Parts: sequence; C-alpha cells; structure tokens
Amino acid sequence: MTADVTLESQRVRRDIRAGRITGTSRGLAHSFVQCNLAILPREYAFDFLLYCQRNQRACPVLEVTDPGDPVTRKLAPGADLRTDCARYTIFVDGIAREDRADIRDLWRDDLVAFLIGSGITFDGALERAGVPTDRYRWVLRTKRPTEPAGPFRGDLIVTMRWLTPEQAITATQVSARFPFNHGAPIHIGDPAAIGADLAAPMFGGPVPAIPDGLIAVFWACGVTPQSAAEAAGLPLFITHAAAHSFVTDLSADRLMLP
Amino acid sequence: MTADVTLESQRVRRDIRAGRITGTSRGLAHSFVQCNLAILPREYAFDFLLYCQRNQRACPVLEVTDPGDPVTRKLAPGADLRTDCARYTIFVDGIAREDRADIRDLWRDDLVAFLIGSGITFDGALERAGVPTDRYRWVLRTKRPTEPAGPFRGDLIVTMRWLTPEQAITATQVSARFPFNHGAPIHIGDPAAIGADLAAPMFGGPVPAIPDGLIAVFWACGVTPQSAAEAAGLPLFITHAAAHSFVTDLSADRLMLP
Repeated sequence: MTADVTLESQRVRRDIRAGRITGTSRGLAHSFVQCNLAILPREYAFDFLLYCQRNQRACPVLEVTDPGDPVTRKLAPGADLRTDCARYTIFVDGIAREDRADIRDLWRDDLVAFLIGSGITFDGALERAGVPTDRYRWVLRTKRPTEPAGPFRGDLIVTMRWLTPEQAITATQVSARFPFNHGAPIHIGDPAAIGADLAAPMFGGPVPAIPDGLIAVFWACGVTPQSAAEAAGLPLFITHAAAHSFVTDLSADRLMLP
Repeated sequence: MTADVTLESQRVRRDIRAGRITGTSRGLAHSFVQCNLAILPREYAFDFLLYCQRNQRACPVLEVTDPGDPVTRKLAPGADLRTDCARYTIFVDGIAREDRADIRDLWRDDLVAFLIGSGITFDGALERAGVPTDRYRWVLRTKRPTEPAGPFRGDLIVTMRWLTPEQAITATQVSARFPFNHGAPIHIGDPAAIGADLAAPMFGGPVPAIPDGLIAVFWACGVTPQSAAEAAGLPLFITHAAAHSFVTDLSADRLMLP
C-alpha cells in the first residue's frame, strides 16, 4: 500500500464514517478481510483473549487494540473503531440494549477491541475454486462445548454449507489454506453428530430437507466468541451489528500466508 | 490415546519427575511436540498473551493454564509443570538467578504458564523430506523489531539454517504446513537484510563462512517471547532451561492440521 493510492476498503470506511453507507458490509470491498468486532473492558480482556486462544478454530484473533485506543494499527492503519462500522450493537449486563451508528460517546479508557476473522473472508477463494457460496448456508448452534476461560464459555457455533461431494473436497482443501481464519471444516455429514440445531438457525432461513446428492459441511464460526461474550453478562460489551462487519485493508489472499 | 497405553512422552515426563532424566530434552520422545515454557504472574499475563498474539509467527501459544493451576489440560493432560521439565531457569527482576530441577516451592496462586511451540517440532518432518537438521543451525538476534504489548518488546530472534537451494524450497513447503509452529521462513538469503547478528549466536557455535552452494534460510524463533519476558524485568519469571523443553503428548504431525 502506498501513500497515493486509496484502497477500496479505505473508501468504504470513509463512506461509512460519513454516513453514506449505513447497510450491510456484505459485498463491499470484496477482496479485503472483514472482521467481527468485540469491544469489552480491560478487566475481562485477558480471559477473552485466553478464550479465543483456547478455541482458535472458532476465534481467530487478528488484532487487539491497546486499552483505551480506538484506532487499529495493523489491519487498517488509522481506522477509528468508534465510527468505522456501519452499525454497532450495545450489550449491557448481557442484554442487547440498542443499535448505534457511532459509539464515540460510549468510549472509555479501559475498553479493548478485538478484531476476529470472519468466515466471509474465504468466500472469494471458494468461488474462484468453483464452490458456490451464495446459497445453502446457515449459522447453527451445536452441542459441542468450547473450552472455557474465566466467564467465557458456551457451545460451538458453526457455519453449515450444503455442497456436492466434489465441492466438499475442494472446499476442505481451499479453507485449510486459511489456518488463521477458521481453517478446514470441523465436521462433515450428519448434523446430529455435533448436535447442530437445525430447528433454529441463527442466520439463514429455515433449514429444509437436504437435496439428494448434497452433503453437509461444517466450519467453526466467528459468532462463537461473540455469543460467549454475550452470555458472560459483562457490564458493557459492544459488537458490530450482524452483517455489518468491520472492513480491513488486509487482502483476503494474504490470510493464506501464515 | 487410550487408558492402557503409556505414551513415550508420558514415560519421559515420569522419568524426569523421578530424577532419572536430568539432561537435555533433545532427541527424547521424538515424534511429540516439545514446548518452550514461560511462567509469570497473572498481572502480566494479558500483556504477554497479547505480545504473543501480535507476534504469532515467533510466539505460537499452544496452551495457557488457568492462574494458579500448574497442571496442563490439553497438550499433556495431568502433567505438573512444577516438576515435569528437567531443568528450569528462575529470573528475578529480569536477572537469571538460578537453575532448578523443581519449582514446587516457588509456585503461587497467581502464576500462569504458557506453552509455546518449539522449532524442534518440525525437524522430524524436515528430515523425512530429505532436509538435514543436525548441522548448520543457529539462533540469532536480528534488528527487526517485534510489535510490543505492555512491557514486552524487543527484536525478533530467528533460527538460521544453511541449506541447498533445493532443500530451501522443500523446507519452505514443509514448514508452511505448520502454521501454528512458526510456519514458513520469514527471510531467505542475505543475513544483513534483517540485521541478523552473526557475530554472537545465542545457540550454535560461531558462524563460519557459508560454504559455496548453500543459502541461508531464516525462521521466526520461539526464543523471541522468552527474551522479551526477560527484558521486561518482571519480579518473577520462570522458563525451561535452554534445551530442556517440556515434552507434550501432542503428536508433531497433528500440528500440521490446524
């Protein structure tokens, strides 16, 4: 990145900051990594980072800001995490209180922001390898417990995709090349084997009967740490609103190169 | 692992605990992951974990114990980190005070242990791919700064190997398969480009002139976080003594599968 080039990701963040983009981040700055955002008090930051380390497949931490510093240094130098997501959700004592376009007045000297890789990131690589990503995709709760740390615990949340057997094999190889962004699938085949809750998907419509010739493939999902933070009932917890992720300047292809 | 099988790694730890093994861990339980050990007060644990996250190539954290708990749960279930290394080095205010075979009397309720992957781990995979690992290997300081966190900072420490160009290409491919254990090289060729200090290797004998036909290849090294923790001058910091790593029950081949 050189000084006289404005990246597509930088344009997107500028438009978000100015209120010109207020909707979902899906489809924006397509070749750049998008991140889940988790902001919480320093008091809980060690346990949360530990939770992410212990459940790295679900919680790939890509950057952590210093306490009180709302500016990202690595993934999007100079971006302000108080204004550069299009929408935030504010949790107080574990309850979602409101959505906001700006959290400047909520910022405190003890807040720490975690940027966690989003599964959207390898969609482009899947598409290029001939694996469709625009349908047959759900986010589901499972009965597989994560490893707890301090107050953070809960069951693993997964992304389920329905693919042909050939696509499933290709998708396994492609996603394995992103070890810092969920990596290879954690399960393939029977949803019941991991207790995946088909009755109530967290995202995606109702799950119909699986068409003949397709197989279910499951990846650890970045909603897992967000769900654990909500359940922990912290006095204050701020996250990006669903589908309004933080757009970074990191090329998605770079995540392939650990 | 089943209940009626004793792993080679478990036998090694039992012999260490009983004082029957007191020397280096090099060559012991060859197919199992060995870890660098860093034990420090809870007060510094967040910054240290953050330092490792920010410098993940050099500091692949594989397990962190809960404060006060000296027992590993994941990499070597039931192992006692106060007795199961053959030798420990104790730092007080950043100064190495003594080496010990046992740290039970130093253990405190606020100590947290970090197990960090050691570069020894992929030696077996390199050997199987025809890359020799028994000579031409040094650990060197560089002038490439790491990303600081709290009191932890310092220049990157690297492992330098001299290889033929063909071996260098093979070694790059093999090590890239271990993204959670330093991964691919960080540099190849001229040591001066990263300020590698050939005059005073940390491990390995003096560096002679490189033989014709060989090329220098550099990997981020797990001595980096240990060096940063020493330099931070913590009131108490305990590490494995050099070449006396902690032997885990994790198969080295498993680290290939993120």
